[in-house]
Amino acid sequence: MSRFSLGSDNHSGVHPLIWQALAEANVGHAPSYGTDEVTEQAMREFKTQFGSGVEAFFVFNGTAANVLCLRSLIESYEAVLCAETAHLHLDECGAPENAIGCKVLTVPTTDGKITPEQIEPFLIRGGDQHYAQPRIVSVTQCTEYGTCYSLAELRELREFTRKRNLLLHLDGARLVQAAAYLNCTLRELTADLAVDAVSFGGTKNGLLYGEAVLVFNEAAARKLKYLRKQYMQLPSKMRFLAAQFLTFFKDDLWRTIARETHDVAAYLETRLRDIPEMAVTQAVQANSVFARLPKDWVKPLRDHVFFYVWDESPGYLHNGQPTFEVRLMVSFDVKKADIDDFIECIQKIRGRAAGEAMT
Amino acid sequence: MSRFSLGSDNHSGVHPLIWQALAEANVGHAPSYGTDEVTEQAMREFKTQFGSGVEAFFVFNGTAANVLCLRSLIESYEAVLCAETAHLHLDECGAPENAIGCKVLTVPTTDGKITPEQIEPFLIRGGDQHYAQPRIVSVTQCTEYGTCYSLAELRELREFTRKRNLLLHLDGARLVQAAAYLNCTLRELTADLAVDAVSFGGTKNGLLYGEAVLVFNEAAARKLKYLRKQYMQLPSKMRFLAAQFLTFFKDDLWRTIARETHDVAAYLETRLRDIPEMAVTQAVQANSVFARLPKDWVKPLRDHVFFYVWDESPGYLHNGQPTFEVRLMVSFDVKKADIDDFIECIQKIRGRAAGEAMT
Amino acid sequence: MSRFSLGSDNHSGVHPLIWQALAEANVGHAPSYGTDEVTEQAMREFKTQFGSGVEAFFVFNGTAANVLCLRSLIESYEAVLCAETAHLHLDECGAPENAIGCKVLTVPTTDGKITPEQIEPFLIRGGDQHYAQPRIVSVTQCTEYGTCYSLAELRELREFTRKRNLLLHLDGARLVQAAAYLNCTLRELTADLAVDAVSFGGTKNGLLYGEAVLVFNEAAARKLKYLRKQYMQLPSKMRFLAAQFLTFFKDDLWRTIARETHDVAAYLETRLRDIPEMAVTQAVQANSVFARLPKDWVKPLRDHVFFYVWDESPGYLHNGQPTFEVRLMVSFDVKKADIDDFIECIQKIRGRAAGEAMT
Amino acid sequence: MSRFSLGSDNHSGVHPLIWQALAEANVGHAPSYGTDEVTEQAMREFKTQFGSGVEAFFVFNGTAANVLCLRSLIESYEAVLCAETAHLHLDECGAPENAIGCKVLTVPTTDGKITPEQIEPFLIRGGDQHYAQPRIVSVTQCTEYGTCYSLAELRELREFTRKRNLLLHLDGARLVQAAAYLNCTLRELTADLAVDAVSFGGTKNGLLYGEAVLVFNEAAARKLKYLRKQYMQLPSKMRFLAAQFLTFFKDDLWRTIARETHDVAAYLETRLRDIPEMAVTQAVQANSVFARLPKDWVKPLRDHVFFYVWDESPGYLHNGQPTFEVRLMVSFDVKKADIDDFIECIQKIRGRAAGEAMT
Repeated sequence: MSRFSLGSDNHSGVHPLIWQALAEANVGHAPSYGTDEVTEQAMREFKTQFGSGVEAFFVFNGTAANVLCLRSLIESYEAVLCAETAHLHLDECGAPENAIGCKVLTVPTTDGKITPEQIEPFLIRGGDQHYAQPRIVSVTQCTEYGTCYSLAELRELREFTRKRNLLLHLDGARLVQAAAYLNCTLRELTADLAVDAVSFGGTKNGLLYGEAVLVFNEAAARKLKYLRKQYMQLPSKMRFLAAQFLTFFKDDLWRTIARETHDVAAYLETRLRDIPEMAVTQAVQANSVFARLPKDWVKPLRDHVFFYVWDESPGYLHNGQPTFEVRLMVSFDVKKADIDDFIECIQKIRGRAAGEAMT
Repeated sequence: MSRFSLGSDNHSGVHPLIWQALAEANVGHAPSYGTDEVTEQAMREFKTQFGSGVEAFFVFNGTAANVLCLRSLIESYEAVLCAETAHLHLDECGAPENAIGCKVLTVPTTDGKITPEQIEPFLIRGGDQHYAQPRIVSVTQCTEYGTCYSLAELRELREFTRKRNLLLHLDGARLVQAAAYLNCTLRELTADLAVDAVSFGGTKNGLLYGEAVLVFNEAAARKLKYLRKQYMQLPSKMRFLAAQFLTFFKDDLWRTIARETHDVAAYLETRLRDIPEMAVTQAVQANSVFARLPKDWVKPLRDHVFFYVWDESPGYLHNGQPTFEVRLMVSFDVKKADIDDFIECIQKIRGRAAGEAMT
Repeated sequence: MSRFSLGSDNHSGVHPLIWQALAEANVGHAPSYGTDEVTEQAMREFKTQFGSGVEAFFVFNGTAANVLCLRSLIESYEAVLCAETAHLHLDECGAPENAIGCKVLTVPTTDGKITPEQIEPFLIRGGDQHYAQPRIVSVTQCTEYGTCYSLAELRELREFTRKRNLLLHLDGARLVQAAAYLNCTLRELTADLAVDAVSFGGTKNGLLYGEAVLVFNEAAARKLKYLRKQYMQLPSKMRFLAAQFLTFFKDDLWRTIARETHDVAAYLETRLRDIPEMAVTQAVQANSVFARLPKDWVKPLRDHVFFYVWDESPGYLHNGQPTFEVRLMVSFDVKKADIDDFIECIQKIRGRAAGEAMT
Repeated sequence: MSRFSLGSDNHSGVHPLIWQALAEANVGHAPSYGTDEVTEQAMREFKTQFGSGVEAFFVFNGTAANVLCLRSLIESYEAVLCAETAHLHLDECGAPENAIGCKVLTVPTTDGKITPEQIEPFLIRGGDQHYAQPRIVSVTQCTEYGTCYSLAELRELREFTRKRNLLLHLDGARLVQAAAYLNCTLRELTADLAVDAVSFGGTKNGLLYGEAVLVFNEAAARKLKYLRKQYMQLPSKMRFLAAQFLTFFKDDLWRTIARETHDVAAYLETRLRDIPEMAVTQAVQANSVFARLPKDWVKPLRDHVFFYVWDESPGYLHNGQPTFEVRLMVSFDVKKADIDDFIECIQKIRGRAAGEAMT
């Protein structure tokens, strides 16, 4: 355990207000599996936030949210299209393939986003029984690189997918980051864009645990009731998930959390730009900063504050030095003062390196 | 929400000591996915409790614990044998079939327990490729009827299954109830009996959420590392599961909880035996009482305290009256005074019924 | 290889007329995967035989026909109801569970047939997400015991299932036997009864290989195009399956084969009834005879003509002697003279047994 | 139906000697499901051809052969690596993902072959539970482009995969083409290279139907007995598959067929090289020729002889003309005289085009 890290937004614990919500839910007995009053209230709140057409299903984690969104909408012989950097493809240990029996086809990207032009080449062999038929596009908003699709970009994707008879899914493990960055409501980012399903994340935004599968389609919702259970994702003490989300929505706590973490990330970016040996590699539109730093700095810096090396590929030189790309992820409880500490540590390493270079 | 109910041991919330453990875990940052110190400490504690051969994997719920135990041990063309009353068969919405692709074959039972003699007729067609090959026996300890296998009965099952080349799995959503009732250690109930896998339950025994898959077999453990993730059961903020279990084990909190709930259940049984219109239908060896009561009493009584009707089959008369079988389940926070209230309510309904009968 | 056996109707080879059809199809080149003229002609012929609403999909074997019928109609969280004697349950090595992820629930039976009354107790917990929802009834026509549902019985099942929102599937590996026995058309047995899907068998009725999945539902047909391929059942040289079925239908060859084998089975039954030590155990309504014979006769008789022991359970005495139940299955190429040989062999064994008994 | 085509080697029918084998097998009764004498003889013959360590399992088609090879060797959380052009990836409608639950990762290629260097970048994140672990490399021999790995290339792949703890699978739908081209035995191409599994194809080489799953590993063989049945690939009238393969092996009929088709393909290549508007795009090492021809020629030429357009991508100019890449596939019954006809047809179209160009 450490006071803070830049490892991941799931390295932090539970936001104090969410914690209080859990405590308040922990009173007396309530029916299980979602028939309690708190859950009913939360279901109503989801309709307020995402429009009356939404049906929400709490699940335990993000892998499950993604898989159940897709499972409720496509057939095993259909294919999912997503960015080659998508969590869905790289970090679910084949959960979609295993649970749905479908193919996941990957679209090249440099910033985590994909465009109609990049999707187009995959839309071949329609009606050919030998070819898994592309049926749904899954985009991560904000992306795994901390970049956001603009509303215009999403609208373009929606129009394209509709024309090509494709569904649209948002992996929104950090959807609140995108809504805060774009300064829009959750509904404007989802129902108003007529997306078909959303994995709405809580755990990475200050909850103890819990995500929501959101669908806007009655047939999918009817299936999800049973699919959630069959895929082992039906929580018994559901009120505790509901209570967390109610507080998450109250007074737009989600937006406060997202804004604050983005502010801290933007501050980190600014400070990093002062360091000539480092290069920020992605636009900072959420709570993470991707940057290249001299390879030799990684170890001493990680001894101080944990973070992940994103790309160890050799050959990326910056100012003539071999570098590693790292991801610096800001959780709700990381403050600007923590960033100052981190920068100070970098400067020390830098000074030491300079000193060594002189000798 | 109600002050208490007899609905299920997942209708209650979180035990105060478990709550405190969660609060203490909610400090600073920790690595996710089980690489934190709290989880490492919990893993060591599992070895203390269940023997050094155990490998424990936290998962979100009981369905997942059961399914992953089996998935790690059998092939899709093999079959699971369990009691016809098993949760695994009746209440998982086909999760084992879906996740493993295997058959679940059901053995008749009256008290939730099964014997070698009852299993024997299923052990046919060995080596016949057309027939899903029986490979694992899953028994629930304590059973869905609140009955416990004795250590001798389990030993007999173990010997029988070993002879017949079958594995043995315990669905232990309420294993602690059985250990308390049998006055033995968790290890005596599991590792010392050389069972192959255990679903070790927390949620129904006062935890917020969390169960553990226990296996005693290296090959299964190697698989489980990935299977847990692929089957969408890898919690990110793992320290919170670990912290709960550490407290559950500390000073045998589990045993205290189990004993107290059994005491209350036994007290409930005693009080019910005073009511001639009712009949207790199963031995009370855990935290539940199964009883038949006059059909007409169900509604007014449930208006007061919630419980489940277990069997609505017509034709069961008790003292000449049509009856329903109900399950009365005692949670950690139900006290003898609550039982007194409940009995008082019964007596009122009884008096009213007697009055009506006289008029 | 032996001149004939009573083992199974898949122990025989290919009917001479079917063989000729294969030979005639083996000329020149044809497009693969079902786009050839012979297959198109066969598809039209299926509509003639089963009504214009049918869509037919050739597959390789009976397991696949059963599984794909069900896969196209139900969800993984739904359940199949079938007789406890159904091939689907006993002899597919868990293929339905594996391919569909669903539960198969078994209805007790003594003659291979099931009734609405027997199905009724399974229709519980509608809408309960924990319980795999019964959705389709699969009946085998003719049954694994060589008995046939009458048209009235099927109509009653159809009315019952429709009322209870259940689909109806026929496992028709030997459907032609039933149509011949009931003296009706294939359409009267299927489309006219508004069944939802049929596994229509060829292999056991004189074909080299090949079965057809028949569905009467556009949505299922659209899925099956891809499901057949994804489940590895799309034959490339499809013309050879089509050619066999065209000949099977031509001049009602199927009826001729079915009638002749039933005649021979009926003749066998008559001859067996003369033997006091034996007892025919099931009505002979297709091409098989189930009978009990003295346990000691099995080995010498099987040395002469192969057949399967169906039930080795001890304790069935006939005329005071321990017996085994055997299945005697008549293929298209078994003649009455073969039956005479078989009976002669029985009489020899009988005489020897009587001789031994006297000494 | 047409006298011949260049569409696919599954557009042709059955080779006369294979036909004769089927006819000879069609005598009397034989036990089903592989317990007959012909199958036993075939199993012995496979050991002669592929070494005593091989276990062979007949299945119906190539999709099944590929899927069952992989299913018997890897876990659902492991990944298959194959060329981006592999049939396994492009043409099985997601069958591997559906049947195994695994990921299929694709390696870039230009000629259908892949090298250790190309595989290397995929071998990352070993031991990371979030990442489907690469476990088997599947190479197609000969490839979908009609090219062959040399024995040295395969040896290098084998050494590399062994070092990296990867298994090696050959998709050998046309393995006989490779063995003929490399002038080696089937054993030299498989067992002697210590490959782990082979999909050994019959259908595309003159058989009516039938492929064989070959494994060299007892554990996999034990599983395959049941997996074949559970995955719906157990043929009942097995003797007919066995008889075909026995004849296929007799006097190296497979080599004769492969050589003759390669000769015809090579002849076709030579003739095409005379046509300046066309360009052969792949080495001709099996029974297919890939070539670019002027876009406008495709329709009139296909009216005469059927073939597939392989790549319709615009922008490929040859001698200044827009072209399509086509695949010309030679079946066992296509003769040099047929090729002469085809070339004559091209010359006519060419002449017409030249005439039009002049006017």
